[in-house]
Amino acid sequence: MECYFDNSATTRCSEKAADKMRQVLLTDYGNPSSLHGKGMTAENYLKETREIIAKTLKCEPKEIIFTSGGSEGNNLAIFGSVRANRRVGKHIITTAVEHAAVYMPFKELEKEGYDVTFLPTDERGVISLDDLENALRDDTVLVAMMHVNNEIGSVMPVARAGELIHKKCPNAVFFVDAIQSYGKVPLIPKKMNIDLLSVSGHKIHGPKGSGFLYKKDKVKLDPIIFGGGQEQGYRSGTENVPAIAGLGVAVAEMFSDFEGHRAHLFELKRGLAERLSDIDAISINSGLDDNSAPQILSVSVDGVRAEVLLHALEDRGIYVSAGSACSSNRPAISRTLKSIHLKDSLLESTVRFSFSIYNTMEQVEYASDVMHELIPVLLKYRRF
Amino acid sequence: MECYFDNSATTRCSEKAADKMRQVLLTDYGNPSSLHGKGMTAENYLKETREIIAKTLKCEPKEIIFTSGGSEGNNLAIFGSVRANRRVGKHIITTAVEHAAVYMPFKELEKEGYDVTFLPTDERGVISLDDLENALRDDTVLVAMMHVNNEIGSVMPVARAGELIHKKCPNAVFFVDAIQSYGKVPLIPKKMNIDLLSVSGHKIHGPKGSGFLYKKDKVKLDPIIFGGGQEQGYRSGTENVPAIAGLGVAVAEMFSDFEGHRAHLFELKRGLAERLSDIDAISINSGLDDNSAPQILSVSVDGVRAEVLLHALEDRGIYVSAGSACSSNRPAISRTLKSIHLKDSLLESTVRFSFSIYNTMEQVEYASDVMHELIPVLLKYRRF
Repeated sequence: MECYFDNSATTRCSEKAADKMRQVLLTDYGNPSSLHGKGMTAENYLKETREIIAKTLKCEPKEIIFTSGGSEGNNLAIFGSVRANRRVGKHIITTAVEHAAVYMPFKELEKEGYDVTFLPTDERGVISLDDLENALRDDTVLVAMMHVNNEIGSVMPVARAGELIHKKCPNAVFFVDAIQSYGKVPLIPKKMNIDLLSVSGHKIHGPKGSGFLYKKDKVKLDPIIFGGGQEQGYRSGTENVPAIAGLGVAVAEMFSDFEGHRAHLFELKRGLAERLSDIDAISINSGLDDNSAPQILSVSVDGVRAEVLLHALEDRGIYVSAGSACSSNRPAISRTLKSIHLKDSLLESTVRFSFSIYNTMEQVEYASDVMHELIPVLLKYRRF
Repeated sequence: MECYFDNSATTRCSEKAADKMRQVLLTDYGNPSSLHGKGMTAENYLKETREIIAKTLKCEPKEIIFTSGGSEGNNLAIFGSVRANRRVGKHIITTAVEHAAVYMPFKELEKEGYDVTFLPTDERGVISLDDLENALRDDTVLVAMMHVNNEIGSVMPVARAGELIHKKCPNAVFFVDAIQSYGKVPLIPKKMNIDLLSVSGHKIHGPKGSGFLYKKDKVKLDPIIFGGGQEQGYRSGTENVPAIAGLGVAVAEMFSDFEGHRAHLFELKRGLAERLSDIDAISINSGLDDNSAPQILSVSVDGVRAEVLLHALEDRGIYVSAGSACSSNRPAISRTLKSIHLKDSLLESTVRFSFSIYNTMEQVEYASDVMHELIPVLLKYRRF
């Protein structure tokens, strides 16, 4: 049985999305900037997807800026907002557990002279609002925070953070990396005081190379890619129409039954956690409550190296991740796992199961059976 | 008969490329950063395309950095090289006829305090090497130049410019925007002293959202998108594997018969120019010699507004461009047409025919017939 449980790394593209992409690639291939009919047809695909997305976020279509994916969206949000709001100040805040596509831009800004506060988290991977409140200053220009942690699935108190930030620092921009939360955790930017929010298409069965940034109307943002002025000037370059059209299909599918999908994901996650709970060597790093993300289960296996377990599972058709798998090289020790104070011995013994709405309980049962069979064997041969 | 003659705006995706994309989207959908087999399979697509491209440029595969397209490649080359080579100085050079995705980054750098020289062109749209030599200074850090002009198809003396730059300013970076030349005009970066070179996939029957930057080994470059460290750290973000795989197919097709394709494009361009030459109101802005680009024919029709002609042609199934069509808004007066000293009255009366290897002489004959029929009618009803 094949069980692809690495959906937080990337998902299989929706077949309907792939069909739509083919239509655009081969038939409706015009450049939206062209003045003739083929340009208009292409432009309509952009309009359609923008409307589909806006509906899911209860925002205006013009508040959606298409990007090439999550990393570009995060970089645009971070560099674009500090540059457009220079006068506010040079203090920026983020958390200790961000994805590299937030963490690295912050390290760049630090080199440029920005004063950076990295908020710590508790053992669940969640920041404290008191810490945030204490960190906010008159010259704070940006607060960047992930909604759902990509490694353990913890959920940040984004709505309350947004309220706090806008109350104490009305000129600061609040950016939320929603790459692991969109489609899985309720998310209404206007209700949650979010100014900028980034989403990646390929995490929700859309194509790689697609994504968007929600930018609240009137929030100031500089581009990072300049040129022909597409996307209201915030993102130049011929729009990736086939991918954007595919993204629209994938988003519509994800949101066709948001609550149903969410319940299914919770069932898979909790089902696996429960089935694994009788294995002594195993500890679960993810919350299982209703406030956790429904699709991510981080599991440490004391005495078994993550890579060894990963390949042993792969031999049985089960695909999981060691570390966050969004980094091109063998990941260094995870900042997230450090931040939740995972025992040193478990840092390299942690794997992530991440589910999709297309996974089944049968697959979860099979994976549990395989784990029960493998772990005693691997423990017998452990070398560290 | 449908005649899509707007191939410099965008091309129809190759069917084989679209097939390959579908395979990657639906079957080989792994994240190249994943450690399991699905990651390896995805990684292999990147490797394959990198090798295909490297062969066409006679360079090393590791010198190819995948981007989301031409605008990103141009921005990465410009911002990335001036930032990585800060110590060299703050003087940068480009030409008066660049695409917006070069011109706008230069205007940004000008705001940041860089001293910019815009080299003028002659009436063919070509810079003078003497002007370039005179412009070069000890603190010149970057020279950026298009290879083929997107509006009129003139070809810059890139090889001789490269020689000059590297002789006089060994620390300067020479960046060539090859978006309209790759696959159409001979191009060997190492022979031509080119340090950086950007290409867009969708101009050569590859998918939108694909492209690459050639970066000569050892040339220093900062990223503009930071994160997981993909593409040797020069371009973070999950690689757009389906588009990159499709790009590989398209490149292989384009280069399967480079000289044959080039001859065919020249035949189409010269064939149309010749057939239109007996229309009094028409003047041809593109060179027709062997040193011109084979695929672009810029035509001014005295007394007929470009937009009117464009829509009249569209009614007969012929798709052309008014202005360069790479800009999202109605283009302002073209910098290129200004720079070649086109008569003021013709600035808004200029259309571009841009051919693909899949166009035919039959289409050219049909388009010529339609032009002969339409222009006298349009001239009769002209209002300016």
